Amino acid sequence: MKALIENVLLEGKKTSVLVEGNRIASIGKEKDSSDEVIDGSSLAIAPSFVNCHAHAAMSLLRGYADDFPLQEWLQKYIWPVEAKVTKKDVYWGSKLACLEMIKTGTTCFADMYFFPEETARAAKESGIRAFPGIVFLGKEKIDAGKVKNQVKELGSFGERIRPMLAPHAMYTVSEENLRIVAEISEKENLPVHFHLSETEKEVRDCVKEHGKRPVEWLEKIGFLNERVLNAHSVWLDRKEIRVLAKSRAKAVHCPSSNLKLAVGGVFPYCELKKAGVEIALGTDGCASNNSLSMLSEMKFASLLQKHDCNDTTVMPAKEAFSIATEGGAKALGLDAGAIKEGMLADFMLVDLKNFSLVPGHSLISDLVYSASDSCVDTVFCNGEIVMRHGKVEGEEEIIEKAKAQAMDWTGR
Amino acid sequence: MKALIENVLLEGKKTSVLVEGNRIASIGKEKDSSDEVIDGSSLAIAPSFVNCHAHAAMSLLRGYADDFPLQEWLQKYIWPVEAKVTKKDVYWGSKLACLEMIKTGTTCFADMYFFPEETARAAKESGIRAFPGIVFLGKEKIDAGKVKNQVKELGSFGERIRPMLAPHAMYTVSEENLRIVAEISEKENLPVHFHLSETEKEVRDCVKEHGKRPVEWLEKIGFLNERVLNAHSVWLDRKEIRVLAKSRAKAVHCPSSNLKLAVGGVFPYCELKKAGVEIALGTDGCASNNSLSMLSEMKFASLLQKHDCNDTTVMPAKEAFSIATEGGAKALGLDAGAIKEGMLADFMLVDLKNFSLVPGHSLISDLVYSASDSCVDTVFCNGEIVMRHGKVEGEEEIIEKAKAQAMDWTGR
Repeated sequence: MKALIENVLLEGKKTSVLVEGNRIASIGKEKDSSDEVIDGSSLAIAPSFVNCHAHAAMSLLRGYADDFPLQEWLQKYIWPVEAKVTKKDVYWGSKLACLEMIKTGTTCFADMYFFPEETARAAKESGIRAFPGIVFLGKEKIDAGKVKNQVKELGSFGERIRPMLAPHAMYTVSEENLRIVAEISEKENLPVHFHLSETEKEVRDCVKEHGKRPVEWLEKIGFLNERVLNAHSVWLDRKEIRVLAKSRAKAVHCPSSNLKLAVGGVFPYCELKKAGVEIALGTDGCASNNSLSMLSEMKFASLLQKHDCNDTTVMPAKEAFSIATEGGAKALGLDAGAIKEGMLADFMLVDLKNFSLVPGHSLISDLVYSASDSCVDTVFCNGEIVMRHGKVEGEEEIIEKAKAQAMDWTGR
Repeated sequence: MKALIENVLLEGKKTSVLVEGNRIASIGKEKDSSDEVIDGSSLAIAPSFVNCHAHAAMSLLRGYADDFPLQEWLQKYIWPVEAKVTKKDVYWGSKLACLEMIKTGTTCFADMYFFPEETARAAKESGIRAFPGIVFLGKEKIDAGKVKNQVKELGSFGERIRPMLAPHAMYTVSEENLRIVAEISEKENLPVHFHLSETEKEVRDCVKEHGKRPVEWLEKIGFLNERVLNAHSVWLDRKEIRVLAKSRAKAVHCPSSNLKLAVGGVFPYCELKKAGVEIALGTDGCASNNSLSMLSEMKFASLLQKHDCNDTTVMPAKEAFSIATEGGAKALGLDAGAIKEGMLADFMLVDLKNFSLVPGHSLISDLVYSASDSCVDTVFCNGEIVMRHGKVEGEEEIIEKAKAQAMDWTGR
């Protein structure tokens, strides 16, 4: 499609943005024979969010079990339900997740869950980008041929859907399998989605078993490289941060989840940044957040870091916004996360008359520290409109079906 | 007015709620000749929020200056602007604040700012409750007669507006003036709004000057009693917590502000609760939060406490919701904060089809951990509708005027 957004605020100045095909074709051009003209006079344009750690289908478990001790939560609630998960659960959970992401300005997410082809299907239908992760759990040797087929299947959902490999964590995947994943990733040039050092126990267990801390051990077995996204990355020491920087692996900050699950530590943002590690932001799944709003997540990230460093200047609004947009795009190798000619047309138009963005001294400050989700007016992904003036096509049906499916899944 | 909300979800069950005058007249009654019938079939009813620490007019400074070191922020940005504050600034700032509060389900706030009569006027017009605080700053002896007149003026804005006395803090108000405030409060039965031990420096300075920590010294001079709301209450030791409990003074948790301003410590929620101190929740002003959403504030409170205590079970959703509603109502002596016959008709109707409350395993969990502000559909205060289906009367004008006034105030 071809669309011109006229008279829209971009970085403090009024301009026009022309979308052609799936890219931002030009900025500052006059009206011509564009397919569609959008009046941007009370809107600002900003890159949409890239959520680098999600378990989309778990949206059906939002509010299912909160405030329990971690082990009770897993053993009594999450695992028993997950043991009976169906394709339909994943499909409708992912549909709901995509709806929530669009409503809150996110157009791309890195995922990790059972039946990733269902998440791929849901994301394809919703119009946003997804990197569904093929999950590896357990000690049984990975069948590389089977994985190749899964990669092929996930690759068949069109240009917006790109497969990734998702070995769950060090403590759930064997060394042999981690090595196989690393090999497939290299051969097929696939991103890798991993849970790294979320809890202190993981680190202690790793040291006990391997005589090294997780990052050092992962480096030794050849697992770390620029394609790996390390969700959480909380319990890292200085040496590990240096190793991580050298490996060019990415670190994904998940502040709400870390706080809610009381993992104890805090993502060492300043140290990672100083060492040159590329940083992205993620919400984690709805069982442990319980929201997929990157607007909320940016505020948690910035405020938690200021608190933890005892320094009001840490992670200023611009940086929080940057890791939530550009940072995620870089981590996943996307030409997105900025409003520039030639970039993918993945962006949001925010309503400058929304109460939460008024009076409007600084749009980026407002988006990070005060924005209500309701300020997101219109969302583009890959040059197509996925939400127009707050409405997403078919949303009523998604809400209804997701509710019914959640009750079916959990037996409530 | 008389209004019947039919077929609405209340604590997991469908019922009807009848509002008569400014109270909840009955629950579970059939339709009769009520003025208005509201279809609650896709709605739930819940008490609206009581924000126990705000500087409403500072909404005009939202995003004006963020991420600076505390002293630079105060000296270069906040104080110079406050030095030239006008009545009109306070009026339009408070109008914007009331709009934001209504949109996010808050119907009562305790305030502290210059020209409290302007905040009173704005709140009166908006239809919500306010406790505008008469600010005391500096060493000049308080003129009790003048204060009496101010109290009288603030009392003339109708039943929803009740004056409070707002001595700023220990380090900005003289001992003599704190004693005078305590006397007036007792004589006139007025609540007191105070900043207590927000930073460690305050505590150190107090010990240096008085040889006691703040709570002990305030107790000694007769300042603490059940009418006092202590905003922040971060840097308290065990003995102070016992003294606070005995005094029956309230503690107001302001998590977002404390994190954003990096005050270092964390409100000792578990210890205060255990000691029997009554706890409420507050957003602080928009210069240091930058939002007035109590939905967001509940999540920050609960997640921060879990993190700080390293315990996922701390401040479960129910408790977070309780301090944000009942806790605030109790602190201010209001018959509100619960949906019960005879209580003030201060409540919100939330849209159960809003993406952020789906699938709906637990409404309270969803309100605390995932709710988007957009789930607030309709808001009642004192038996009157102040927002209907997301629309507040006159909101466009408020947004426009507040923007213009902010630019006028700050000279931008």
